[in-house]
Amino acid sequence: MAYLLQVDFKMNGPFGDEMAEAFSDLAKSINEEDGFIWKIWTESPETNESGGIYLFETKETAEKYIDMHSKRLAGFGITDVNAKIFATNSKLTEINKGPVK
Amino acid sequence: MAYLLQVDFKMNGPFGDEMAEAFSDLAKSINEEDGFIWKIWTESPETNESGGIYLFETKETAEKYIDMHSKRLAGFGITDVNAKIFATNSKLTEINKGPVK
Repeated sequence: MAYLLQVDFKMNGPFGDEMAEAFSDLAKSINEEDGFIWKIWTESPETNESGGIYLFETKETAEKYIDMHSKRLAGFGITDVNAKIFATNSKLTEINKGPVK
Repeated sequence: MAYLLQVDFKMNGPFGDEMAEAFSDLAKSINEEDGFIWKIWTESPETNESGGIYLFETKETAEKYIDMHSKRLAGFGITDVNAKIFATNSKLTEINKGPVK
């Protein structure tokens, strides 16, 4: 069963195309992480927040990733990180066409 | 551009198949909401939390949904709801195979 990791934190940019340019190498490296399936990059310039929704193959790989990622964010000066790992409810998600399998 | 709504709250179950049975009619109704694209249903029996990750066509339809959904959750006795709406960064999300278009 796939596990979902939701992460958000305060960040004063960059956002949009500038964010995409700054983090494209980081994004490529995320594709190589253990158990990684996909990530949606999230951003809210209005509230100075950013983050991501990730899908991982197992709870363990999601936990391993957020441990590593929290340290990386701390290196960027971002320490107040909201991170939660959830199981996904397959039957309900299927009714609502959620992209999990 | 698609907007992502992340919602989570404390809930003492039901989880798993029992949750799917309790909320399958609600799930079907969500497919009819304005601007709705998909929802992943999330649950964490270990921490007594539940929620969902939604994709909407516009920020306005995401806002309209969470206004209605917050009132519905309050009707279930759930009032301490974390809800955030984010834009999605298309370029980075595409690198990471995120299911947004």
